[in-house]
Amino acid sequence: MRLTPEQLEEFDREGYLFLPSVFSPEETRLLREEAERVYALDREEVWRESSGAPRTAFAAHTYSEPFRRLGRHPRLIEPVMQLLDGPIYMHQYKVNAKAAFDGEVWQWHQDYGTWARDDEMPEPRAMNISVFLDEVTAVNGPLMFIPRSHKQGVQDAGHDLETTSYPLWTLDRATVKRLAEEGGIVAPTGPAGSMLMFHGTLVHASPPNISPWGRTIVYLSLCHVDNHIRRFKRPEWVAHRDFTPIEPLADDCLSELAAGQKSAGQAAE
Amino acid sequence: MRLTPEQLEEFDREGYLFLPSVFSPEETRLLREEAERVYALDREEVWRESSGAPRTAFAAHTYSEPFRRLGRHPRLIEPVMQLLDGPIYMHQYKVNAKAAFDGEVWQWHQDYGTWARDDEMPEPRAMNISVFLDEVTAVNGPLMFIPRSHKQGVQDAGHDLETTSYPLWTLDRATVKRLAEEGGIVAPTGPAGSMLMFHGTLVHASPPNISPWGRTIVYLSLCHVDNHIRRFKRPEWVAHRDFTPIEPLADDCLSELAAGQKSAGQAAE
Repeated sequence: MRLTPEQLEEFDREGYLFLPSVFSPEETRLLREEAERVYALDREEVWRESSGAPRTAFAAHTYSEPFRRLGRHPRLIEPVMQLLDGPIYMHQYKVNAKAAFDGEVWQWHQDYGTWARDDEMPEPRAMNISVFLDEVTAVNGPLMFIPRSHKQGVQDAGHDLETTSYPLWTLDRATVKRLAEEGGIVAPTGPAGSMLMFHGTLVHASPPNISPWGRTIVYLSLCHVDNHIRRFKRPEWVAHRDFTPIEPLADDCLSELAAGQKSAGQAAE
Repeated sequence: MRLTPEQLEEFDREGYLFLPSVFSPEETRLLREEAERVYALDREEVWRESSGAPRTAFAAHTYSEPFRRLGRHPRLIEPVMQLLDGPIYMHQYKVNAKAAFDGEVWQWHQDYGTWARDDEMPEPRAMNISVFLDEVTAVNGPLMFIPRSHKQGVQDAGHDLETTSYPLWTLDRATVKRLAEEGGIVAPTGPAGSMLMFHGTLVHASPPNISPWGRTIVYLSLCHVDNHIRRFKRPEWVAHRDFTPIEPLADDCLSELAAGQKSAGQAAE
């Protein structure tokens, strides 16, 4: 899977790229069911909303075989190697739930703001790539981007420890307003299996989910190996310290696992 | 302004009808500026979020000339007389702000649930008609409807006095989920000046507004005069007690006022 010159140009200009239905329903179902299993685990990596509903499972690639494979999937890794122009490592891995009714807000922020301030990542040669495990619609708390905001570098931010259970460096309102007046706000929506990639300095947020439907998205934060973090303040399972270049697996690494589970299920019946 | 047979059928089936750009930019601007003036008033009818941002101005038609005219505008009154099949009176009048960043949630509810329980309105021969004073988009807290939910009558509800500054009879989660599995959820969006009408038993909600843009909507709750409320528990400016049939004004009643203000402004320069 290679991005076209038009796609590379669009990512550079807008700061994000949305590719619908990159993963098959079968691959997506495998990951969706695995997310449920992971959220039920009693582990320090699994964070909850104040209601107790799951919010984020960190580092799921280290304790789940489907998520391990997704973390090395060529449909994710190869486009990011292309965009970051070289070998990459996994800086962070999150399975974000945004639970039905209870899923809370993520305030306006830049991910690289956190990576720079908390982790001393030298440059924004890092980005996110995400996979929708549920359909994302206007009604279940979609991710909102301010297009082209990534071109304006790292913005001042305050450390928000109160709004939600997750500490976040968030932008002030005047900055958000100024950037949104220039770039607008978009909320990319699409079916489960869609892929959304965005620059480390792109300003984004997501509203609470008041709908009766959950909305799970996996986020891989990938960084050029030369640009690895210098400071180990956050737990290893939040900001990883293994800078080994990721070797992509085969394109069928997930469908193979799904087929195996299915045949095992049938054999057991 | 008359609704077509197709529009009447759609309203009956889906429980709502969306008509984009019914009011001109000039008419909308007049109302938008008037909303700002009204929100700045220190009156008991003007309610605020916990942040102090405006949430709702009740009964604005009783202390504002532009909103008085809107409350008798033929583009609002005539279609509702058609749908409710006879003379109507104003049960409630609200200018809802949903302020930038601070606008809070309205949980899932049916307006007629409140009208029946609090005001003893005999039957759901009453409905809402609203006018967007700002563009409503997926990112600034749009109204969300569960289509066809109005066909299932009044649902059980609990009196929510805690979530926001406004007491509301809200539906339980199992009911919302069941209705949404059947009817889906839609979020009608469109330019300022658009009109949205919906049945008194249609289940709806709106999420917080995390965008940097306000989203003001005027709501008229109109009721057939024979179906007037029997109980006067809520303040008169929340649930009106004047059951006089509304006589629509001329179609240019707002544009005339806008033109008058403009020429007065020019004369003063």
